[in-house]
Amino acid sequence: MPGNSFGKILKLTSFGESHGKAIGGVIDGFPAGVDINLDFVQKELERRRPGQSKWVTSRQEADRLEVLSGIFEGKTTGTPIGFLVWNKDQHSTDYVHLKKAYRPSHADFTYEKKYGWRDYRGGGRSSARETISRVVAGAFAKILLKEAGIEISAFVHSIGDVSLPGDYAMSDLSKTEDSPMRCPDEKTTEKMLHLLEKTVKEGDTLGGTIACMARNVPSGLGEPVFDKLHADLGKAMLSINAVKGFEIGSGFGAAGMKGSEHNDLFVKQGGRITTKSNRSGGIQGGISNGNDIFFKVAFKPIATLMKNQLSVDADGNEVVLEGKGRHDVTVVPRAVPIVEAMAALVLADHWLLGRLSRI
Amino acid sequence: MPGNSFGKILKLTSFGESHGKAIGGVIDGFPAGVDINLDFVQKELERRRPGQSKWVTSRQEADRLEVLSGIFEGKTTGTPIGFLVWNKDQHSTDYVHLKKAYRPSHADFTYEKKYGWRDYRGGGRSSARETISRVVAGAFAKILLKEAGIEISAFVHSIGDVSLPGDYAMSDLSKTEDSPMRCPDEKTTEKMLHLLEKTVKEGDTLGGTIACMARNVPSGLGEPVFDKLHADLGKAMLSINAVKGFEIGSGFGAAGMKGSEHNDLFVKQGGRITTKSNRSGGIQGGISNGNDIFFKVAFKPIATLMKNQLSVDADGNEVVLEGKGRHDVTVVPRAVPIVEAMAALVLADHWLLGRLSRI
Amino acid sequence: MPGNSFGKILKLTSFGESHGKAIGGVIDGFPAGVDINLDFVQKELERRRPGQSKWVTSRQEADRLEVLSGIFEGKTTGTPIGFLVWNKDQHSTDYVHLKKAYRPSHADFTYEKKYGWRDYRGGGRSSARETISRVVAGAFAKILLKEAGIEISAFVHSIGDVSLPGDYAMSDLSKTEDSPMRCPDEKTTEKMLHLLEKTVKEGDTLGGTIACMARNVPSGLGEPVFDKLHADLGKAMLSINAVKGFEIGSGFGAAGMKGSEHNDLFVKQGGRITTKSNRSGGIQGGISNGNDIFFKVAFKPIATLMKNQLSVDADGNEVVLEGKGRHDVTVVPRAVPIVEAMAALVLADHWLLGRLSRI
Amino acid sequence: MPGNSFGKILKLTSFGESHGKAIGGVIDGFPAGVDINLDFVQKELERRRPGQSKWVTSRQEADRLEVLSGIFEGKTTGTPIGFLVWNKDQHSTDYVHLKKAYRPSHADFTYEKKYGWRDYRGGGRSSARETISRVVAGAFAKILLKEAGIEISAFVHSIGDVSLPGDYAMSDLSKTEDSPMRCPDEKTTEKMLHLLEKTVKEGDTLGGTIACMARNVPSGLGEPVFDKLHADLGKAMLSINAVKGFEIGSGFGAAGMKGSEHNDLFVKQGGRITTKSNRSGGIQGGISNGNDIFFKVAFKPIATLMKNQLSVDADGNEVVLEGKGRHDVTVVPRAVPIVEAMAALVLADHWLLGRLSRI
Repeated sequence: MPGNSFGKILKLTSFGESHGKAIGGVIDGFPAGVDINLDFVQKELERRRPGQSKWVTSRQEADRLEVLSGIFEGKTTGTPIGFLVWNKDQHSTDYVHLKKAYRPSHADFTYEKKYGWRDYRGGGRSSARETISRVVAGAFAKILLKEAGIEISAFVHSIGDVSLPGDYAMSDLSKTEDSPMRCPDEKTTEKMLHLLEKTVKEGDTLGGTIACMARNVPSGLGEPVFDKLHADLGKAMLSINAVKGFEIGSGFGAAGMKGSEHNDLFVKQGGRITTKSNRSGGIQGGISNGNDIFFKVAFKPIATLMKNQLSVDADGNEVVLEGKGRHDVTVVPRAVPIVEAMAALVLADHWLLGRLSRI
Repeated sequence: MPGNSFGKILKLTSFGESHGKAIGGVIDGFPAGVDINLDFVQKELERRRPGQSKWVTSRQEADRLEVLSGIFEGKTTGTPIGFLVWNKDQHSTDYVHLKKAYRPSHADFTYEKKYGWRDYRGGGRSSARETISRVVAGAFAKILLKEAGIEISAFVHSIGDVSLPGDYAMSDLSKTEDSPMRCPDEKTTEKMLHLLEKTVKEGDTLGGTIACMARNVPSGLGEPVFDKLHADLGKAMLSINAVKGFEIGSGFGAAGMKGSEHNDLFVKQGGRITTKSNRSGGIQGGISNGNDIFFKVAFKPIATLMKNQLSVDADGNEVVLEGKGRHDVTVVPRAVPIVEAMAALVLADHWLLGRLSRI
Repeated sequence: MPGNSFGKILKLTSFGESHGKAIGGVIDGFPAGVDINLDFVQKELERRRPGQSKWVTSRQEADRLEVLSGIFEGKTTGTPIGFLVWNKDQHSTDYVHLKKAYRPSHADFTYEKKYGWRDYRGGGRSSARETISRVVAGAFAKILLKEAGIEISAFVHSIGDVSLPGDYAMSDLSKTEDSPMRCPDEKTTEKMLHLLEKTVKEGDTLGGTIACMARNVPSGLGEPVFDKLHADLGKAMLSINAVKGFEIGSGFGAAGMKGSEHNDLFVKQGGRITTKSNRSGGIQGGISNGNDIFFKVAFKPIATLMKNQLSVDADGNEVVLEGKGRHDVTVVPRAVPIVEAMAALVLADHWLLGRLSRI
Repeated sequence: MPGNSFGKILKLTSFGESHGKAIGGVIDGFPAGVDINLDFVQKELERRRPGQSKWVTSRQEADRLEVLSGIFEGKTTGTPIGFLVWNKDQHSTDYVHLKKAYRPSHADFTYEKKYGWRDYRGGGRSSARETISRVVAGAFAKILLKEAGIEISAFVHSIGDVSLPGDYAMSDLSKTEDSPMRCPDEKTTEKMLHLLEKTVKEGDTLGGTIACMARNVPSGLGEPVFDKLHADLGKAMLSINAVKGFEIGSGFGAAGMKGSEHNDLFVKQGGRITTKSNRSGGIQGGISNGNDIFFKVAFKPIATLMKNQLSVDADGNEVVLEGKGRHDVTVVPRAVPIVEAMAALVLADHWLLGRLSRI
C-alpha cells in the first residue's frame, strides 16, 4: 500500500536515499530452483553507472551488489532475496547550502510539502540512485524470463531533436551496446554526440526517448480490466525519474489514424494465427498476443544545469543555484537498463500470474 | 491481485460482461458521513451514453444505476457501496457468427489464448460497456474530491488530424459540454464534425486524444517511488479500452527540450511559493505541487468498421467480417467522462493516502 | 486495503447490510474453464438458513442466489463473478427504537465510534447476514478444490458444556448433516438438544465450538513467514461474527505438553513419507504436509436474548432492551457452512498460489 | 502477495535465513516526522535474545541493529526504513548431517515439498531467527503507538502445566521483566523454574501460553468485515513460529457460557459510556471499543530435544537425530517481545487506517 513496493507476485520492495548508508531492496515471490548468475546481475548494475562515456558523466562510482538472503548454493530457495549496495561518498556537507533552497523541477519542494521536512542531501529518496534497486531486481526478473525465452531490449530512440529514423521496431538491437549513446544506429549516434558536445558547452541538458522491445512473449499475459499488460508497463515506466510520457505500439500516432489503417488483420502464417501488422504493439485488450511488444518512453531534460539558475528558498527568499562544474548532459543512455529492468519486472510478474488464468 | 480491482484505499472492484445480466461493482474504503447525490452519479453515467449526437451513435441504451448498499439516509456509512446497472438487450444470438471468428484489433484472440475459451457475445468483458463501473465509481470519487475542493475536467483535444490549437492547458473548460464533440472550441468542433461526416461515408472510424485538467489539487499527493501520482494516473488511463498513450505535463515534447527551457522556476507569488511555468504538469518527483495537473491520452480508432474486413477464425479459415450498418465513428467524445472518472479515482485515493504521510 | 476483500489470488469482495437492498459480492481470480453447478451453490446457501430445526430459529427466509457475470454456458470465463441475494423484509421501522440504544455485546457502539454514525437497522453491516457472501464464495471455492480432490467438512464440537467426547479428528463426518445440531454423534446431539430446550425456557443463549477437517490437501500449501496456512485459516475464522478463538492441531493443549509427547515422528508408510501422529494438524512451519488439516473455532453465545437487558443510549441514558419473542438460542449449527466456506476460500487461494512456488 | 510482507499501511517486508548473511527488512508507510530512539529499538531486540537466564539458553548471540535508510537527523522522513542484523556464526557445516534428514515437527519436510529443495542450515527461513525483523519493526510500531498513548505488554501466562492463577487481565504488568520467566507473579515464576529444572534433566522441552494486553487503544480501530481487529491480531500471532492457538477476550471459555453471563453491559461511568465487564476483550464487531484489548497465544513445546529422536531422511531411510547438548527448554519467555511486536504492528497499522474511516 505505501509506494515502495512494485509487482503482485514477483514483488520488489525498495529502500534507500542517495546519501544514506545503502540502497537496497527485497525481492519476494521469486520461484525456487532458479540458477542465479550474480555476475550477470552485477553487470546489469554497471550498465546504469555513469562514466561510461565522456559525455555522460565524470563522477566515478563503484556499486557493488551484496545479496543477503534467498540464494543458496547458487539457486533461489523461494525465500525473499534481500540485497543492498553501499553508498560511498556520503559528503552530506556538500548539500547544506541546499537545505532550504528548492531546486527547479526537482522534488525538494514537493517532498517537503508532503512529509513536512526532507532529507536534503542530494535529493534523498528522489535521487535517481534509487533506481539501483530497480536494476538489481530487474536483472533477477530477466533471469526468470530467460526460462520462458522472453528477451527485453531497450535503446535510445532520440536525444533532443536527433531521432532514429524509420520504424524503430525494425532496429538491429544487437548494436545498441556498441553505441556510447545506446542507439543502434551509427549515424544517429554521431549526431547525438555532436548535439551533446554543443549542449555541454552551453551548460545545458537534454531530454530524449527510449524505445523498448520484448520478444518471444507468449500470448495470454495481462490481467484485464485494470491490470492490462500495457497499463502495468506504463505505470512502471512513468514511475522512473524524469519520465513524462509512455506509448504502446502505435501510441499517439494512433490518434490520427483511421480504423482501416490501424487494424491489425489476422492471418494464418506458418501454421499459426498471427497478424499482418503490429500496430497494437503485441497487446490486444490488455493481453499479449504473441507478437513483439514495443513501447516508447519520454524523458525530460536533467533539471540540474551547469549554469546558474534562480530559485527561492523555504522562506520565499530569492536564491541563486550555482551551476555544477561537470555533470550529466542527459540521463537517457543511462536510463536504458532501467527501462529494461522495469519492463522485466512487469513481464515476469505477469508471466507468473498467467499460470493461474485457467484450471 | 487479480485484475478487476483498482485503487488502494478507495478501491473499485468491477464485474460484468456486455451481454451478461448486469455490469456493476463494489466501492470499498469510501469514508463515512459523505452526502451522496445519486442524481449526480446517474447524470455522470448518462454522459458516457451513446446517442448524444447524430455522429456518435444510433443505438439507444438507458443505463439506470441501482445502489445496493453503503448508503443510508442519503449518506455513506463507511461500508462498501455495491451497485449495478442491468443489461437490457442481451441478443446473444446476434453474435453466434462471431463465435469462432477473431475480429481484427479486438480482444477475441487474446482472451481465448489466455482463458482457453471466451464469452463471444459482444466482446464479453472486453467490451467498453465495462466502463460503466468506472464512471459510477468515478462519480463517487468526484463527490469526495469536492469536499477537498478538487475539480476534474476532461475534453476532446483532437479527432483524427483535427486538433485544438494552442496551449490546451489554457482552454475554457466551461464550454466542453456545449460541444457535441466535447471540444471546448467551437471552430475545432465544426472541423471535427466535418471530418466525422466524411469518415462515416467511408465506413471508417477515427481515433483522437483527450486532455484532462485537475484543479485545486493540494500539494503533497503521490506515493514515491513506485506509486508516483502521474504513474498511477498513467496506469488508470492506459487501462481504459483503446488507449495507446499517456503524457503528463510537457510529455513527449519534453524529450526535445533543453533543461533551461523546460525547468519550472520557483517564485514567490501572492505570499505563496509557486512556479513561473508548469511544464511539470503539477507533479514533481511524483508528488503534486499545488499547480494544475494536466495530461493527455491517445485513443486508437474504433476497430469495428462499417465496411467489410477480412480475418480468420479459430481454425485458421479466412472469414469476412461484414461492416455494421450504423456504428460509432469515434469513441473519443464518449470517453471524456471515463477519463475524468479514472482521474477522480486516482486523485481521491491519493488524497486519502495523503492523510497518512505525517504523524 | 479496506476491509471487505478476502484472499490474494482468489479474492472475494463483499457488500451489503442486513436491511439494505441486497447482500452480494465479487469473486475475482477464479480460473477459467471450471464447470459450475449453481444448484450446489444454492444448496450451500440454504445450509446457513435458519429454520432448519425447531431449536434454531423460527423466522423464515428464502435466500435466492443471483449470479450476474463470470459464468457463460455453465463454465467460468476467468472474468469476475458478480452475485447477489436480495433482502426481503426490510422492515426498518422495527428498528427505530434501537436508533440510539447500544445493544450489549453487539457492534452498535463501535460502528458509531468508528464511522461517526451507523445504519441501525438490524445491525447493518455487522449482521450475520453478511456471511451470505462468504458462503456463496466458499461454495465456488469448494468447486475449485474438488478439482484438486480436497474436501472440507466442519461440524459442531460443543454447545455450552455439552461436548463431543474423544478425538474429534476421528469423527465420522458423513453423519454431520443428519444431526439437527450438525454434530456427528447421536448421543451428543441429544444432549445438546436437551440443553437447548432448557436454555430457551430461560430466555438465554449458548455458545459452542466448531471443528473443521480438510482432507487430501497436497503438501506445499502456505506462504511463510506471514501468510502461513494456519495463520490465514485463523484470520478467516476470527473474521466470522461471534468467533473468539482458533486453534490448529493440538492447539491450546500443546501448551501443556512436552516436546517428546508432542512431536510428530516421521515414518515411511506405504511408500511415502508421513508422520505417526498428527498433532501439528497437517501444517508444519506454515506449510501443509499432506496430512489432514484440522482446527477448532470458538463461538460466543448470541448477544440478543429472549429476556430483557439493561443498556444505555448514545446520550448515556439507561434503556431497557426488551427480549425478543422467538429467537435463535445458538448460532453454532448455522455457522458450520460458514466455517467451511472460509476454510475453502483460504485453501483454494493457497492452492492457486502454490502453483507459483517453483520454476 | 507473496508471504513476506505484513501490514497494509504500515508494512514490514522481511528477509533472511538463520545461516545466511543477514536478517533484515523494510518498513514502509511509517509517517514522517517521528523521533526515533534507536537505543530503544536495540533494547527490544535484546529482549528476544537467548541467554537471559540460565534456563533459557546457553548459546551467546549479539544482534546489532543497523538502520540503512528512512531516518535523518534522528527523525523519520516518510521514506522506507531499511534495516538488518548480520548473522555471526554461519557454521553451515554443522548442519550437513541434516541435509537429507527431516527433523520431527520442524519445517524441513514441508519446505522441501513446497520449494523442491531447501536451505538445510539451521532451519533456513523457518528458523525463529526470522523474528528479529518482527521485533525491530514492532519496536518502530511501539514508538508510533506511543504518540497515540497506546501501550502493549505481554507476559508468560503458563509453562507446561504451571499457570498464572486468577484473571490474567488483572496482572501487575510492571513486574513482568523482573521475572526470569517473564511471568508477573513471583510464586508462579518459581514453580515454572522448578518445572524447567526437572524438564531439562529429562532432556525434554515445554510449551506454554503468552497473554498480551493493549491499553489506551482508542475506540474505532478495526476494518470489518474481514480485517476485524482481532482477526488481524490472530493472524499476526499465528504467523509466529510454534504458535498453535489464539483467543481474544473470553476466548474458548465463551463457548461454554450463556448469553446472559457473557454479555458486557453498557453503563455510563465518569461521563463516558463503557461496559461493566470486558469479556469481549476490548473489541466488538471487529472494532476496538476503548477498553483494554487482551488475548492469549498458545505455543507448542520446542521440537528440538536434548535426547535422541527417530526420523527418516528424504529417501525414507530411518535416521537417529541426536539430542543437542545444551538447548532451550522452552521458547515462551523469549517469545514475549515477539508477541508484543506483532501486536504493535497490527495496532499501529489499524491506528493509521482509522484516520480514513470518516470524511
